[in-house]
Amino acid sequence: MWKPRGPMGRVTELHRGQEHPIAAWNSVRTDLAVEIHEDISRTSPNIKGLTVDVDEQEQIKTTRMKITTQAASSAMQKLKGTYVTLEVPELRHKDPDLQEQVALCLAQELKPYIHVPEQAVVLVVGLGNWNVTPDALGPLVVENLFVTRHLFHIMPEMLEEGFRSICAIAPGVLGITGIETTEIVQGVVDRVKPDLVIAIDALAARSLDRVNTTIQLADSGIQPGAGVGNHRRALNKETLGVDVIAIGVPTVLDAATIASDAMDILFTHLENKVPGNDASKILNQFDHDEKRQLISELLQPIGNNLMVTPKEIDEFVEDIAHVVAMGLNLAMHPAMTIEDAKALTH
Amino acid sequence: MWKPRGPMGRVTELHRGQEHPIAAWNSVRTDLAVEIHEDISRTSPNIKGLTVDVDEQEQIKTTRMKITTQAASSAMQKLKGTYVTLEVPELRHKDPDLQEQVALCLAQELKPYIHVPEQAVVLVVGLGNWNVTPDALGPLVVENLFVTRHLFHIMPEMLEEGFRSICAIAPGVLGITGIETTEIVQGVVDRVKPDLVIAIDALAARSLDRVNTTIQLADSGIQPGAGVGNHRRALNKETLGVDVIAIGVPTVLDAATIASDAMDILFTHLENKVPGNDASKILNQFDHDEKRQLISELLQPIGNNLMVTPKEIDEFVEDIAHVVAMGLNLAMHPAMTIEDAKALTH
Amino acid sequence: MWKPRGPMGRVTELHRGQEHPIAAWNSVRTDLAVEIHEDISRTSPNIKGLTVDVDEQEQIKTTRMKITTQAASSAMQKLKGTYVTLEVPELRHKDPDLQEQVALCLAQELKPYIHVPEQAVVLVVGLGNWNVTPDALGPLVVENLFVTRHLFHIMPEMLEEGFRSICAIAPGVLGITGIETTEIVQGVVDRVKPDLVIAIDALAARSLDRVNTTIQLADSGIQPGAGVGNHRRALNKETLGVDVIAIGVPTVLDAATIASDAMDILFTHLENKVPGNDASKILNQFDHDEKRQLISELLQPIGNNLMVTPKEIDEFVEDIAHVVAMGLNLAMHPAMTIEDAKALTH
Amino acid sequence: MWKPRGPMGRVTELHRGQEHPIAAWNSVRTDLAVEIHEDISRTSPNIKGLTVDVDEQEQIKTTRMKITTQAASSAMQKLKGTYVTLEVPELRHKDPDLQEQVALCLAQELKPYIHVPEQAVVLVVGLGNWNVTPDALGPLVVENLFVTRHLFHIMPEMLEEGFRSICAIAPGVLGITGIETTEIVQGVVDRVKPDLVIAIDALAARSLDRVNTTIQLADSGIQPGAGVGNHRRALNKETLGVDVIAIGVPTVLDAATIASDAMDILFTHLENKVPGNDASKILNQFDHDEKRQLISELLQPIGNNLMVTPKEIDEFVEDIAHVVAMGLNLAMHPAMTIEDAKALTH
Repeated sequence: MWKPRGPMGRVTELHRGQEHPIAAWNSVRTDLAVEIHEDISRTSPNIKGLTVDVDEQEQIKTTRMKITTQAASSAMQKLKGTYVTLEVPELRHKDPDLQEQVALCLAQELKPYIHVPEQAVVLVVGLGNWNVTPDALGPLVVENLFVTRHLFHIMPEMLEEGFRSICAIAPGVLGITGIETTEIVQGVVDRVKPDLVIAIDALAARSLDRVNTTIQLADSGIQPGAGVGNHRRALNKETLGVDVIAIGVPTVLDAATIASDAMDILFTHLENKVPGNDASKILNQFDHDEKRQLISELLQPIGNNLMVTPKEIDEFVEDIAHVVAMGLNLAMHPAMTIEDAKALTH
Repeated sequence: MWKPRGPMGRVTELHRGQEHPIAAWNSVRTDLAVEIHEDISRTSPNIKGLTVDVDEQEQIKTTRMKITTQAASSAMQKLKGTYVTLEVPELRHKDPDLQEQVALCLAQELKPYIHVPEQAVVLVVGLGNWNVTPDALGPLVVENLFVTRHLFHIMPEMLEEGFRSICAIAPGVLGITGIETTEIVQGVVDRVKPDLVIAIDALAARSLDRVNTTIQLADSGIQPGAGVGNHRRALNKETLGVDVIAIGVPTVLDAATIASDAMDILFTHLENKVPGNDASKILNQFDHDEKRQLISELLQPIGNNLMVTPKEIDEFVEDIAHVVAMGLNLAMHPAMTIEDAKALTH
Repeated sequence: MWKPRGPMGRVTELHRGQEHPIAAWNSVRTDLAVEIHEDISRTSPNIKGLTVDVDEQEQIKTTRMKITTQAASSAMQKLKGTYVTLEVPELRHKDPDLQEQVALCLAQELKPYIHVPEQAVVLVVGLGNWNVTPDALGPLVVENLFVTRHLFHIMPEMLEEGFRSICAIAPGVLGITGIETTEIVQGVVDRVKPDLVIAIDALAARSLDRVNTTIQLADSGIQPGAGVGNHRRALNKETLGVDVIAIGVPTVLDAATIASDAMDILFTHLENKVPGNDASKILNQFDHDEKRQLISELLQPIGNNLMVTPKEIDEFVEDIAHVVAMGLNLAMHPAMTIEDAKALTH
Repeated sequence: MWKPRGPMGRVTELHRGQEHPIAAWNSVRTDLAVEIHEDISRTSPNIKGLTVDVDEQEQIKTTRMKITTQAASSAMQKLKGTYVTLEVPELRHKDPDLQEQVALCLAQELKPYIHVPEQAVVLVVGLGNWNVTPDALGPLVVENLFVTRHLFHIMPEMLEEGFRSICAIAPGVLGITGIETTEIVQGVVDRVKPDLVIAIDALAARSLDRVNTTIQLADSGIQPGAGVGNHRRALNKETLGVDVIAIGVPTVLDAATIASDAMDILFTHLENKVPGNDASKILNQFDHDEKRQLISELLQPIGNNLMVTPKEIDEFVEDIAHVVAMGLNLAMHPAMTIEDAKALTH
């Protein structure tokens, strides 16, 4: 009979998330370049090799960030490359006109990075766990793509008519397959030999405002990081041998972020409230390590594996997957109109 | 064309959760009687009309709480009645032997409350939204019940053989149906005329330890409250005209709970750290309303609708739905063995 | 332990479809008025009280049939009323322009039957089993409706702005709930008091051409019949006390239909092949009862519960649910444009 | 705007199943070795190199067939190898005791073919389309496996304790990915380097009795064939470079099978009915090609892509996936008991 403390018990425990122990607690984790930049620009306003260009339209704020030096890369903790972020606060309001605009905007931002010949094959990889709503973004986008690679040998004229050869996989997560996502993607890349990989993933944000309202595009691929699940291993030119564009949308916050922000807001409040030096005496003694320690205690026993999402996460994820899929279909197939794209992703 | 600020935009916004504005922020919300009791017993250790009986077995801690006076009801903010709570910290470890034990234990606790004749009809109501993983507990339990009511007219001998007449519905949530859950359940109760209603719902807890490891049984029915979704309206003898047993499992924490706890832990830390009166001078000036205000600011713009769940919520919810369904099947059908119950809920 | 031939064994067997034994085998079953009419018009070309009006557009053939006498009702085995059928053979080709046209056409045909005041409440009932792809049409349509009833008390101005009060349920099927669908719907109707009920259901057709390409609209409600599941009980003015419009799409053929057609085609072939009287001598001895008996033997042991569907049934059902939901949203909300409707149902 | 007859229209059409045109209509298609054998043994009772061994237990009939010569392989249209078939007519009755017996029996039959070292890695491939109920068997089995490969580097002692290193993928189907299943599996095999592949697939049967009641195990891998979807390409030692065991369960019949059987039963009936030579004169003129032609006409316009399933296919597929997963878990992990296996697959 089953032994509660036997191997299968332990296995299950490992299975459940302790598999990637994170040595040090980061009190705040984010996958968004704009949020990291916000954070570090307070202390280091000018970083060599980091250029930031902001373009504010009526409802869409586009930030184009270039990391060109190793110093900037270290400061930002991001690989060298370009990071384009669309911030659309109103995207939470299910407005189809705005969704269409954002899809068109995403397509436009994406196109310059699809610098492969017309006959090239593009592989789209939908990362994440389809059983967990906020992690299902990647698989949902894949289901809404106009996949064509298998049709080209029957209809070679599709190319001239403005369609590219697109294929797509949703490789699942380590806990379900027992295989690192990177291994599966590498195997498929070896066989399919795409000229470009586009990887879609659900991200973690630091700010509530950005959850489900932000799309990040990076030409440096996916790097191990917070993400929603524990499934993030590097997917980039180094590991796959081919250019990798990453498209991500934050769908969760880390619970540690909420806790950290709660402490910060309390702290600021106390500082503002008490005039004179009394407060600073006390408060200045509180350092970053203590804070991290307190958060770690607080989030026992589930710790690192807690996520914060809106209750309507199912609708948000479906809507944003629809927008990303429209943008991808438009960017990849020159012949596709916005009408086609809308029709394909219902 | 679509008007972003026109009626449909507003509709969607309302749709998305502001429909039940909560006037006052509760910094900590819980549906668990044991947690409310923990809280108030610090300041009011003895409440007349409240009896608490704790029974600790190896892995299962059972708390039986009786609220018999109006005073106790007010203090606990719970209707008069009996609240039985099973706390099983190890339930998180997917141990089938323990799951079986908990199902048997739940059945045993449940049986005394099924004081209806053998030929009575029981209606099980699975509350919640099947599209949102942590809110899907009720619908999942309903899918695993041994539903028999429609078979009795063909096989009346089932009764003698030890099976009750069971029926079940998952009424959905207001945002999908446009109808209050209570209205749907009332309508079905009027037609089916059950002798007993058992309502299953996902709850909000205050403590992380209790998420997905606790089962609460209440003979006073469902009362409006935190819950996971905004779908909680009263389902009790008053609204349905028939006894209502509620079975709930906390699957989420409110984000406000994490924030509040983070502030408390920081506060305690600061108090402990600074000797003398300096600290108290400052800290004593901070009151409950300020705290609530800070949390409210912090959780803008999604506010009241944020939930905190483990990343493995999909597996947890499936496991606990399996345990609850086994317990219900065992409690309702005298002829059913644990082997039958296990087989039925795979 | 489990007794294979004990009560639960039997229960399961009953559960699985023999619950509604059909006394006589119909060799061919269809829910479509146009198919019944095709059949009987061979032998009875003129039936009093039956008018048929056909309108052929480029890609949509609309048949409006009125049954006004008891004689016509008996001949057609359909209740008195109007039956509108849209036949769109090209609907199988996932063409979004055509889908849009059909949705507009459905809305136009539907509007005259929604003769309720503007402030009236409409209840949409999505019949069928969401776990069985070809039977999931009703629940899928419900998920794509613009449900508003719960918003009217907060935004009464919606009415003036051109939105009706709509609510919707997917009551499930007898095998899951233990409750006849009619009972659940009656209960909800008693509480919600809608002015009109629109019921959506998956149908059985006789002809392969019509599967997933035909939409039938009937102002006489749902009558017990073939359907996809065994869940069809009457939903009409008599049972619900309010007008019931039925919208159905054939998603399956009965296996008996394929068998019957195979025999017929063989028969015709043999008759054509053999000149003279020899064939007729033999073939004329073969009567309808024998045929029915042969089919019944053939379809043992699963018999009555076999369905025939295309392998791409999942895509077809999703597409047609999208079209029906668009049509309904357009017909019910005067302020809604086709653009809005398309956006809402992605 | 969309051009109904433009490239995307054509693409969709191709997408929908005409991608693998089958040159010749087989009037009856089956993936089961026992059914092919039944068929050919009428005309060729003794085939050299084909041995058939039948073992009838109370409720489980086990047929072990060995194809050892090229002649036998040609006659059977199956690769050389061993085919073990479990036929369990009562499996349709949801009896958990019998399900357990069948799982144990499958494990026992399977074990001799898992002749790899204890430390070997086994890759399980769940073929089929998770969106189409009768084709979802493979993905469902994969979801219920005890996957361990990712845990071995943390818990190397698992091996000694009786657990093998198992990993699993559900590669999806060509229409969704644009990539042949074989390519994906080859890619993963190249990276993971398993010692054995076990492929699970939904099959087509010829006889209704065998649908959902039969499990076939073949040590020659998957060969292109009927299957449920159009996704069957070879997965065997030749294509993957490693032994491939195939496990299949028929979940559908081809519609052509029903049609063909209907013609046969009518034919036999006519022959029996008419004494003397008159009948034979007519009937003897009807040959196989004519029959095929008639069936082809009959099944227009959906033709090759029609499947026949019981209406309760969703429950059947879940139940049989549970049985297969239990059998696999037991066969692969020596330390696993039937209790563990049952618990894991709920």
